[in-house]
Formats: sequence, C-alpha cells, structure tokens
Amino acid sequence: MDALTAKQALEKGKATRHEFEGLSYIRLHDSVARLPKGSVRLDTGRVIPGYPSIGRIQALATGLEKQYGDEPFWAEEKIDGFNIRIVAHEGRLLAFSRGGFLCPFSTDRVPELLDPALFDEHPGLIACAELAGPENPYMEGSPPHVAHDVALFVFDLMRDGQPGFIAQAEKQGLAERYRLPVARVFGRYRAQDQQALTELILSLDRAGCEGLVFKGEVQGARSKYVTARSNINDIALVSDALLDLPPEYFTNRMMRLALFEAEHRGNDPDLERELGRALLQGLGRSVQRSREVGRVGHRYRCRFRHQRNLDHFVAHLEATGGPQHVKILYQPSRQQDGYWVLEFERVLPRMTGTLAHALSGGAQFD
Amino acid sequence: MDALTAKQALEKGKATRHEFEGLSYIRLHDSVARLPKGSVRLDTGRVIPGYPSIGRIQALATGLEKQYGDEPFWAEEKIDGFNIRIVAHEGRLLAFSRGGFLCPFSTDRVPELLDPALFDEHPGLIACAELAGPENPYMEGSPPHVAHDVALFVFDLMRDGQPGFIAQAEKQGLAERYRLPVARVFGRYRAQDQQALTELILSLDRAGCEGLVFKGEVQGARSKYVTARSNINDIALVSDALLDLPPEYFTNRMMRLALFEAEHRGNDPDLERELGRALLQGLGRSVQRSREVGRVGHRYRCRFRHQRNLDHFVAHLEATGGPQHVKILYQPSRQQDGYWVLEFERVLPRMTGTLAHALSGGAQFD
Repeated sequence: MDALTAKQALEKGKATRHEFEGLSYIRLHDSVARLPKGSVRLDTGRVIPGYPSIGRIQALATGLEKQYGDEPFWAEEKIDGFNIRIVAHEGRLLAFSRGGFLCPFSTDRVPELLDPALFDEHPGLIACAELAGPENPYMEGSPPHVAHDVALFVFDLMRDGQPGFIAQAEKQGLAERYRLPVARVFGRYRAQDQQALTELILSLDRAGCEGLVFKGEVQGARSKYVTARSNINDIALVSDALLDLPPEYFTNRMMRLALFEAEHRGNDPDLERELGRALLQGLGRSVQRSREVGRVGHRYRCRFRHQRNLDHFVAHLEATGGPQHVKILYQPSRQQDGYWVLEFERVLPRMTGTLAHALSGGAQFD
Repeated sequence: MDALTAKQALEKGKATRHEFEGLSYIRLHDSVARLPKGSVRLDTGRVIPGYPSIGRIQALATGLEKQYGDEPFWAEEKIDGFNIRIVAHEGRLLAFSRGGFLCPFSTDRVPELLDPALFDEHPGLIACAELAGPENPYMEGSPPHVAHDVALFVFDLMRDGQPGFIAQAEKQGLAERYRLPVARVFGRYRAQDQQALTELILSLDRAGCEGLVFKGEVQGARSKYVTARSNINDIALVSDALLDLPPEYFTNRMMRLALFEAEHRGNDPDLERELGRALLQGLGRSVQRSREVGRVGHRYRCRFRHQRNLDHFVAHLEATGGPQHVKILYQPSRQQDGYWVLEFERVLPRMTGTLAHALSGGAQFD
C-alpha cells in the first residue's frame, strides 16, 4: 500500500487516520489492494498487513481431508484471547488490534511479555500473537493455563514486504533463540492421522482448552477447530448478555457443539447438562443483578504499567463504547505490584431494559 | 368495515381478496379503522374482527398487580394450539386463522368438534377457539391432555357488530347450554391471591401445560403467562430448526424460563438439564437426519373428513410454503377410520444447507 493507494482508500471511506502520541497511522476497515481489513500504514510508510481470517472446520475428519488432502500440516493450540500484531517502531514496541487500532493496553504490556531483542536484530519482523488471560479489557474468556493477569502467545511471524507468514521451521528457530512465548505446537500430521488427532482434540476438550489451528506445511493454508468445552465456556461467560450479543454468537456455538458431540462424544448427557447450566445460570445472574442494582453489565479488570496508557485506553473506551454504556468503577491508583489498575463495567442496555420492564410487571407483545 | 373502507384498504395494500369455493372474502393484513389485522370481511358484508394480540406478563406477581390492580380477573388455561374464529355462513361453519385466511383444515374438522346448534340459535356469534393436538398441520406442540388427533377449545365468544367479547358469565352459560368444548376456567382471582395463583401455575408446570390467560372482569383486559415447562417444550420441539426460525423464538423463551425460575423455582438443576437436553437433542436429530437423508425437515400428519378440503389445504401449503420447501410424503388415501390422511414435511433450508456444508468438511468464515 503506497501513499497514493492509502490516500485513495481514505477518500473512498475504506480507511481512517488515527493519532497516538505523535504517531500518525491509517487503518483499513475494508480490504484494499489485496490487503485485508485491519491492515495498518504507519507514517513512515511501513505497512503491517491485517491478520487474515481463518476458515473454521466443523467436522474434523472431513474438514481436514477437504482442506489438506495429503499435505502435511502442523497442529497448534488455539488460544482464547485477542489477536494483536507487534512491531518495533522508532525504539518502542507497538501492538495493533485485529481491526488495526493501536491498542494502548497491549502496547503497554507487551514489552514485559516479549524480549525486544527479537526486533533489534530483525527490525522488519511482525509478531502475530494472542494476548490472553483473566485480566484483559476486551473479553470474558481466558485459557485454563493462564491463572491471572495476561500472557502472550506468539503464533505467527511476518516479515516486512514479504507476503504470507514465515515458514514453521524458521519460526520455531526464532522462537527458541529469543525465547518467545509461543502457542503450543502439538506436531505434524496428515488428514489420515484421525486417531491421533481425535485423541488430541479430546484431551484439549477435557482440559478446557479452546482448540486447534492447523497450518499446511506446503501452502500454509490455515484452518481452525474448537472443542465442545470451548463452545460451552463461551456461552456460559456471556449468556447474561443474551439479548445484547448477535444471536449468531449463541446459535453458531450450539451448532458446533452438536457437530462435535455427533463426531466425537455421541449422545452425552454431560454436555446437555453443561449447556443448560451455561445458559440458565448466566440468565439467572442477569435477573439477580437487575433486581439488586437495576442494571446488567460485564465487569473487566486490567493492569497497566504506565498511567498515560490507562488514560489512552479509557479515552478509547469512552469514544467507542459511548459514555452511557461504560462505567469506570473507581479512579485507578498505583496500588498493586506497581501497576495501575483499571476496573470498569460495560453496561448491557437490552438486558438491562428488558429485565427492568419484565420484573416491574410490564407486558410484552410478541 | 363498510364496503368503502374495504375498497380503500385493498387499494392501500392493507387487505387482500381471497376465494374459497365460491365464497369471496377480504383479509386485513394490517389494522384498518380500529379493526386489528386478521380481520375478515365476507362477501355478504359481515365482518369478523381479528383476534387481538394479548400482552404477555413475564413476572406473575408484579404483572398481575400492574395489569389488574384490585380488579378481579378470571384465570383460564392457555392452550398450545392455533387460534381460529368460527362462524356460520350460508348453512355451513367456516374457520378463519389468526391471520384471516380461511383454513381448509379447521373448516373441515370443526363441524364434528362443535355443536352447530349454537349458531342456529345465535347466528351472529363468532366462536374464538384453539385447535390443538398432535395431528395438526401447523405446529409441533400439543397439550398433554390431547393424546391424538386434534381437539377444540373455545375460549371467547364475540357477537356481530358488538365490540369486545361476551362477558364471562354469559359465555359460560352458552358453553354449558351447547356443551361447547372449552378451555378450563380455574376461577376468579385478584392480584393479591398470590399463593393460590403460584400453586396453580406450578401445578400446570408439573402437568406440562402451557400456562394461563387472565381476563379482567370489569374491563375485560387480557394477559397471558406461561410455565417453565412450556418454554422448554417449545424449544425441544423445534431446536432441530435452530437456524430456520427467528432467533427471538429461542431467546424470548430462554428469558421467560429464567424469569419463571427466579420467581417460582429458584436455582433449579432440573431446569438446566431439561433446557440443555431440549437444545442438544434437537440439534443432534438434525445432524443425524442430515447424515442419513441429506435433509432436515419437520413432519406433519393430519386428517380430513373431505378429500376436497385436503386438496385445498395442499394447494394453500404449496402456494405459501413454496413447492421446494414442502414435500408431500405420499398420496393420501381414505385409509384411517374414514379420514383422508395427509403426511407432509416442511424442509428446513438453512439447517439442511448449513449441515450439509459442515459435514462435508466445508469451512465457515465467521
């Protein structure tokens, strides 16, 4: 994306210009010139391609067969976090979200989660990673093996000006050399290794992990596949927001759950009980919150190294969420292990309104 | 609705003209001149008002208090069927659907379910009733106390040219005199009779019944309230159509279930298990059907007294459902107890397509 293409994308409304502490960048919110949406162009002209969307297979055996045929592929752990791309820029690390926003939270925390020496010796690298854990400001879920705060899982490397990703062997070499925190790589398989792959996905299911990302060795094609438990966890965490999320959030996960059950677990009363509990306990929480405080919301807590990043984050939150839908729960203070702690709540307006109406005895015409 | 109003409604696209065996009628699909949608005007000029929509309360105690205050109200059983209005017209009974279509199925069966003498002596009556049972062509559910075929439950009477419904006492008098099949009337209550009403709804819940309709004694205002079990049954019967129904079908019922649980049953693992089973077993059925026959659909079976009504019904089905989405399973024959039996399947195109794609290994980008 040269300067002219960027200018045209801005004019066509396919890109937006943003500022962050003197850095000017543009962010594509539509695909432009073969760059996917979420791509970023820094003021130096450097381009950070968007992370491509990965096709999801819903039937493991036929999906791998169709996707890879005889081609070998690597199976890596899919991490339940949010996708960032990390680059070094004028002496500091910057982290961009999937959508191409500079993320003040990730940018604040990445320097302590990744050795910057990687970029000193390879300045053109782009590290694609998942930031995951219970103390993140975006999502409710977190991997079972991240007990507190957040952790970083690098899963791909790109190099400036080169299409696609760095090959698996070179990526693993760099990861070892710089002790990068990486997503677990379970091995190299082919579609016919059904038994081993089934055992692998069932062990991840039992462990409460999200699933697998497959990466073809020759073509590099990526696909993903998630566990039954991941679908149930996702539903359990946000069923108190049933009316505020797109219905497909729930229906897609139920479809995946049924397909996983049919392929791997047969008719399973445990899954039925867990799905019902995931839905009804979350809805029960929302009824209780509505009765107690007249409001339904999701609470988040996260920690920053620098107060100015916290301030940037809060400004971003209020700009994108609307001040009426975000409640900062208390003024942050440098109180915990040298971090600035932020706690806030995203109010769920439809659950709040619907339950207030229903509990006060209001009638519904449907 | 005089002839001029009807003409204007047709011109404005708020009404449609239909024919049925020489009877010409127009049907309002929008409200016109204080008549709700579903109202019908026969070629004789007689008007059959649409059955008004009834507000649903979602919290029993506050809902009754808000709706009725100190006014007494009657509590009747809400029947899980479909709403029809029955009139006598030129020597025969006609039954119109909620939407105002002449229903060939109901029109065929009503004469054996209701004593026509009612209309001989009261030609201006309109009987509002629910037709319910496992052998109906429209819906999956049926009341637990209708074990086979269909049964009729009259719950309201209207009189030509008079607004509103005939009062409860007069309705009950007519019902006794003509031995009308009626919905059960449980008694006369006030909002403060909380304990009795709670016991009543919990006994209906245990029995698998749908719920209650309340009718104010003075103002006549109607409202409805359903059991936990009714919501679960509704979900269980059609969760194999998860992607083909509006998502609100499921989310509204889950909300009601959570509100019922919070008000009457507390945290209840039985409800969780039943909800999970309702969802996952239905989805499992759809996966199995997709594997076995490559198609997901709902099967219906119903019986007609006269073959020509069956033919009318099939024509209506194919006209409204689209021939590609309705499969007549075999040619009907007068085979059972003197009835013409129809079996057909409504194909669920989104479940069919989504599962075929997923099971063949196709990738989803979400």
